Amino acid sequence: MKQETLTRALWLTEDTEPVVRMIDQRFLPHRLVTRDLKTFQEAVEAVTTMAVRGAPLIGVTAAFGMWLAVLESAQAEDFEEKIGQAALQMKQSRPTAVNLAWAVDRMLAVLKQTEDREKKQQAAFETARAVMEEEIECCRKIGEYGLALIEEIARRKQGKTVNILTHCNAGWLACVAWGTATSPIYQAFQKGIEIHVWVDETRPRNQGAGLTAWELLQAKVPHTVIVDNAGGHLMQHGQVDMVITGTDRTTACGDAANKIGTYLKALAARDNQIPFYIAAPSSSIDWSLSDGVDEIPIEERSADEVIYVEGDYRGERLAVRVTPEGSPVSNYGFDVTPARLITGLITERGICPATREGLLRLFPERK
Amino acid sequence: MKQETLTRALWLTEDTEPVVRMIDQRFLPHRLVTRDLKTFQEAVEAVTTMAVRGAPLIGVTAAFGMWLAVLESAQAEDFEEKIGQAALQMKQSRPTAVNLAWAVDRMLAVLKQTEDREKKQQAAFETARAVMEEEIECCRKIGEYGLALIEEIARRKQGKTVNILTHCNAGWLACVAWGTATSPIYQAFQKGIEIHVWVDETRPRNQGAGLTAWELLQAKVPHTVIVDNAGGHLMQHGQVDMVITGTDRTTACGDAANKIGTYLKALAARDNQIPFYIAAPSSSIDWSLSDGVDEIPIEERSADEVIYVEGDYRGERLAVRVTPEGSPVSNYGFDVTPARLITGLITERGICPATREGLLRLFPERK
Repeated sequence: MKQETLTRALWLTEDTEPVVRMIDQRFLPHRLVTRDLKTFQEAVEAVTTMAVRGAPLIGVTAAFGMWLAVLESAQAEDFEEKIGQAALQMKQSRPTAVNLAWAVDRMLAVLKQTEDREKKQQAAFETARAVMEEEIECCRKIGEYGLALIEEIARRKQGKTVNILTHCNAGWLACVAWGTATSPIYQAFQKGIEIHVWVDETRPRNQGAGLTAWELLQAKVPHTVIVDNAGGHLMQHGQVDMVITGTDRTTACGDAANKIGTYLKALAARDNQIPFYIAAPSSSIDWSLSDGVDEIPIEERSADEVIYVEGDYRGERLAVRVTPEGSPVSNYGFDVTPARLITGLITERGICPATREGLLRLFPERK
Repeated sequence: MKQETLTRALWLTEDTEPVVRMIDQRFLPHRLVTRDLKTFQEAVEAVTTMAVRGAPLIGVTAAFGMWLAVLESAQAEDFEEKIGQAALQMKQSRPTAVNLAWAVDRMLAVLKQTEDREKKQQAAFETARAVMEEEIECCRKIGEYGLALIEEIARRKQGKTVNILTHCNAGWLACVAWGTATSPIYQAFQKGIEIHVWVDETRPRNQGAGLTAWELLQAKVPHTVIVDNAGGHLMQHGQVDMVITGTDRTTACGDAANKIGTYLKALAARDNQIPFYIAAPSSSIDWSLSDGVDEIPIEERSADEVIYVEGDYRGERLAVRVTPEGSPVSNYGFDVTPARLITGLITERGICPATREGLLRLFPERK
């Protein structure tokens, strides 16, 4: 595999016919397994089984899945019906993923623009590729804006290592390429800025230890894995210059719902006068919400994610039980970091304060 | 085993000859294994292998170990030398444990008070038992003072459940009986107050999930295990009425070094106007220190504690790897919660503000 493929979660191979190739993330960080999506059903399964995860990546996979459905139904008499069924099945593969439904609907809209089957195939492929390229470009822009923040810190530190802390995985494994929170990091690294990343392991699913650390390792970015408990201590001792995390949902006032524990890091950053940034693509902004703590419903996930810890045991993936039989367990998936703790939101249109005014200055069409 | 024995980490059996019986904590929470300490060497090994842990419990085990050394050397011509060697060996079994050295020195001092071998044996046993009883009484008093705080909250909530969050294990498994942070909880439960405990799993060693939850389960105290990331979210949503944790080292100004991650919970408590108490027996107070963040050295522990997670797999204790091969890992064991975030210190002499003045009012002999 070429170096380039190791900085992307999904890509098109350069064969005579384009093939969608992806990393099966269920085997990370202990094994790198890639998989070709050759049928619609394989694309659905990639989403259902969480072989791909992360809102942008799920959307892109769904778009290519719909293209495959078009190819498979090319000769079918009941083409419209088959595509309608495929769209429904794809949307149900992860019902809460907003990007997924959005990508499927966009594919359906394009397919309606021509009656010619050959043109439909071509349009489907071009649109799926456009969905992918737009996601990549969005992440690249976020990285470009975030890079300026890192450069500023590097200047202030006169070339001494810039230490950035991140939580969970908002990297290219979630976003096709670059990632959101990691995009400024990769761009700073490519520019030769001395950086080092503190990677929160991110219990209970360990996406930091299992995905972000692995990503950074592929790109040779200096990093250290820490338990989620450690960030406060590091900040107290001047070992963190900046925090950047992703967001699952951002309110119009700048509150950000992200992986559980993000709020605690924002509090520690504030207590130690450390800038705390959220990489927030506009697709994460829910303009209908204002108070995140009050209004964003927080998903309660399976207790098993806390009770059992998955990992590698002599080449095999096993889950060991860490809590006693009989002890109840709760598992909230996300928490909300209030805008007052956020130094700025890094969007694909620039950086703004985490306020309604700040966001509207970048997205005036939402006024 | 009688119910009583399940609320103690170590106790004397009621046989014709007293025998020291203890829980081998390495098998918790998946198996309850008890062990009799019949020789000095067994006592040393209990400390070395961490079958017993927690400063007070280590001190008590060391005291009884010295008693066993006296019994074993009763007929020896070189009694003094043998006891001297035993003392040295015991102190080296966990060199940083302050209570251990203190308990051994106290035993040595008592042994010097008589030349009669029989009297030495008697004095050794009585002193070891006194060390144990004093630890228990100290914890009981902390619980009595802390209970008043819980009663006050219960009154304010008009009998609705009082939710208490704790971090790590400052329970009877660390302290012979009652525990420090858990003592108010057990006493409130025994008094019939409706309480519920949020138990932080406490990565990396999972003493919350593995020890505190198990303890509370034995005592039938309602509780729920959560990941360390979850506490902030619960506090934002009114699900925590109070935080109580232990402390490994408290400065004369009231800063508290405790298990890594305690500081993050103190920040969240402050942000949500929730009282944050530290159960601080006077033995944890280092009167020579004032600024905890600056002055308390924080131990860096083995990276393996983070890289591997231990748990039960089909009745066997296994460790699975959670981080990728090649990713560096750091593991600070403790952090310091500044006094400004602490609502009060619960000592065996009463509750005081986390200030020099507050502590000196309770411990005027330190002026």
